[in-house]
Amino acid sequence: MEKLNYTMLCDFYELTMGNGYFVSGMKDKITYFDLFFRQIPDNGGFAIACGLEQVIDYIENLHFSQEDIEFLRSKNIFDERFLKYLEDFHFTGDIYAVPEGTVVFPNEPIITVRAPAIEAQLVETYLLLIINHQSLIATKANRIVRAADGRAVSEFGSRRAHGADAAILGARAAGIGGCAATACTITDELYGFPATGTMAHSWIQMFDDEYTAFKTYCECYPDSVTLLVDTYNVLKSGIPNAIKAFDNVLKLKGFRPKGIRIDSGDITYLSKKARKMLDDAGYPDCKIVASNSLDEFLIRDMIFQGAKVDLFGVGERLITSKSHPVFGGVYKLAAVEENGRIVPKIKVSENVSKITTPHFKKLYRLYDKDSGKAIADQLCVYDETVDDSRDLVIFDPTYTWKKKKISNFNAVELHKQIFKDGKLVYQKPSYAEICQYCKDQVDTLWDEIKRFENPHTYYVDLSHKLWSVKNQLLAEVQGVN
Amino acid sequence: MEKLNYTMLCDFYELTMGNGYFVSGMKDKITYFDLFFRQIPDNGGFAIACGLEQVIDYIENLHFSQEDIEFLRSKNIFDERFLKYLEDFHFTGDIYAVPEGTVVFPNEPIITVRAPAIEAQLVETYLLLIINHQSLIATKANRIVRAADGRAVSEFGSRRAHGADAAILGARAAGIGGCAATACTITDELYGFPATGTMAHSWIQMFDDEYTAFKTYCECYPDSVTLLVDTYNVLKSGIPNAIKAFDNVLKLKGFRPKGIRIDSGDITYLSKKARKMLDDAGYPDCKIVASNSLDEFLIRDMIFQGAKVDLFGVGERLITSKSHPVFGGVYKLAAVEENGRIVPKIKVSENVSKITTPHFKKLYRLYDKDSGKAIADQLCVYDETVDDSRDLVIFDPTYTWKKKKISNFNAVELHKQIFKDGKLVYQKPSYAEICQYCKDQVDTLWDEIKRFENPHTYYVDLSHKLWSVKNQLLAEVQGVN
Repeated sequence: MEKLNYTMLCDFYELTMGNGYFVSGMKDKITYFDLFFRQIPDNGGFAIACGLEQVIDYIENLHFSQEDIEFLRSKNIFDERFLKYLEDFHFTGDIYAVPEGTVVFPNEPIITVRAPAIEAQLVETYLLLIINHQSLIATKANRIVRAADGRAVSEFGSRRAHGADAAILGARAAGIGGCAATACTITDELYGFPATGTMAHSWIQMFDDEYTAFKTYCECYPDSVTLLVDTYNVLKSGIPNAIKAFDNVLKLKGFRPKGIRIDSGDITYLSKKARKMLDDAGYPDCKIVASNSLDEFLIRDMIFQGAKVDLFGVGERLITSKSHPVFGGVYKLAAVEENGRIVPKIKVSENVSKITTPHFKKLYRLYDKDSGKAIADQLCVYDETVDDSRDLVIFDPTYTWKKKKISNFNAVELHKQIFKDGKLVYQKPSYAEICQYCKDQVDTLWDEIKRFENPHTYYVDLSHKLWSVKNQLLAEVQGVN
Repeated sequence: MEKLNYTMLCDFYELTMGNGYFVSGMKDKITYFDLFFRQIPDNGGFAIACGLEQVIDYIENLHFSQEDIEFLRSKNIFDERFLKYLEDFHFTGDIYAVPEGTVVFPNEPIITVRAPAIEAQLVETYLLLIINHQSLIATKANRIVRAADGRAVSEFGSRRAHGADAAILGARAAGIGGCAATACTITDELYGFPATGTMAHSWIQMFDDEYTAFKTYCECYPDSVTLLVDTYNVLKSGIPNAIKAFDNVLKLKGFRPKGIRIDSGDITYLSKKARKMLDDAGYPDCKIVASNSLDEFLIRDMIFQGAKVDLFGVGERLITSKSHPVFGGVYKLAAVEENGRIVPKIKVSENVSKITTPHFKKLYRLYDKDSGKAIADQLCVYDETVDDSRDLVIFDPTYTWKKKKISNFNAVELHKQIFKDGKLVYQKPSYAEICQYCKDQVDTLWDEIKRFENPHTYYVDLSHKLWSVKNQLLAEVQGVN
């Protein structure tokens, strides 16, 4: 698929600020921005970072066309020297990020951008929208996949997605979050995430009767038949007609049916009845697919009530993350350089949860050596190193008397350098590798973190040095006002 | 911006069904599909149809590339003759639709597609996702604009949108719904919906102190200054520093400030205090802009409590329609042609609200001649005409004893023909025309329909002929089972 130039997909203030930095002599000022989020969607215990591949494409393609510059000129507010500068505009900075599929927690930088002020500012909008969208869907998909407890989940939501990207990249993110397949053909073509599908109700309606519709489908696709059985009446018409078509067409050709799909009614009840009818007819291997406004809570309840469902098709509630459709990632200034020295910056707020963690930072995850499980994360100043050869005492950054001694652990740095001086220095993993990595990441979490309701809060602590920097800046700001 | 080919953005079952129609000799069977919705988002009284321009672009660009066909071939389930047929695939049918910006109600066809089965089926996914997305946002935007009661509303949500399209086209739809401006630069470039913006908190943080940041901005943009005043403390620091910068820079240059923006804290309280401080300092014309997690309910409450806000910037709750992020449009078979005769089709369901209205239909809106207000809509069979030269008795399609005699009205057919035999026959309106049309449409509604809570249900009735067709088909289906 052709690549679009999304350089102009930015909030207009990125450009007014950019021009302002330019004309006030701050164009080359080096800045550090962190992209992070504050609240986990659906009050979950963790989120999954997703969208880095699209960020890389965007950064590599960053440029203004002549038409873009003409458009900006027509606004009559930009300095001609700035417009001239935009002609050769490209990204020259450094980007650090956690790989796609990484489990992340509030206030951890998913991406850190180190670049001249104008560049770092301009990329804000696109970085946020890409990471916010795909992290939202990957996180939601993982919840739904966990609820299905080993049964497959297919992403079915394109038609209810917020536009083309939301469908295409939403399906991509759903696969990273653990879905087994999608209905979205182009996502398969672009990323290799398998697209599947058989028939809509319209297929059934196109024929004089349900049996003829089923029979025709079995003749077309004898080795991959899943019949939609709820157009008229699941138990009185759909299943009997499906069994008849299996008997009359597939059996003769030597094929087994793959499944039947139920898209309406009380699926728990219908699936149990359907299972018995199929078993009695000699099709115990015929899978039952369920769809229709499913989400993690409905799926969990259905399984709890003994639904005989082998595969869940999940549409609008996954592709829009309907119960919580916003991943609130933000992009905040963390530091600037002055004469080559990194000067940390803080953003205060009356709402203490919105106070930022200043400085150019490193993020470590501490894993228990015996269980392999993640114990805690620690944010450090960029020049610190966590020494995992000896015990470490971590402490709660707010209630500092809450301490915990950690022994026998591996400290793993989570950020990778993605761009260096504007050049891509990161080997992009394949889609399959990202999916596997995400699965491995989620497997490092204790079950307590994975609970839907009231999950345990994972520790994200600051090193003593970083904590001191933050509190010193807070004290200074208080002094000012 | 380059156009992408979204032909492969379809649910995979559109292709399995397409191949199935092809090999079972139904490729040229003419079908009628209606795109409609069943429930108004946020339990509102009406919705706004939006996205037709993108549907037109998609239909005109519909084709499979050789790579697409190779990809499909690799699935090993498609007939070679079907793959060959796809090489020259393009749209050859007719499309009827209500213009963008039209007020629409549940069960009314927003789009009707008449085309050979394969074509009509293939376009389902994209038509749904485009119309669902933009109608969702236009409808939400209109609610927020109505709440603002004459004050301007700006769309600020790109960073929280579900991908690039959701940002770009979401902003487009927000403008059609009545927003006055957007922050999204590219939407201005593409559609002429004005993008505005001034500064983020990072601008303030980039300078040694707030006053210097304000002063520098005033020097850069003396004729378009809106200062963000909540980085440290709105009343103790932001407003005093803003007034100082207005006095020291703008006044000397002979300019007036445009505004100040408050993005945190209790905006109602702060805006009243800020208004007084600005008035007292000689800036009664300096507008107050409010942002931060606003929606129609918060805005209504703030105005009710006397907030002194002139412009509302609305982000995530508009661009994702957070309180109701799904516009549940569906695409259902309404009829087929057999030997040139139109045969109506119905889809039944145990859930009666999901039973479709069959047949190729016309949609009339009946306007009171004196007030110009919309009284009711009537769905008719395609060959009927509503005669507005005499009284009309309409009746509720479920409770048929509920009748209403309508006199002194104009009957306006709402559908336009968009494509005829695959050719565009519709003169696309400009973006400004669509926005004005939408405003005019909403103005034809009685206030009772515009209420947020418990709005009056607008009448959407069936002609006697259409009602008879529907009930006859229902009786036939009941007979079958």
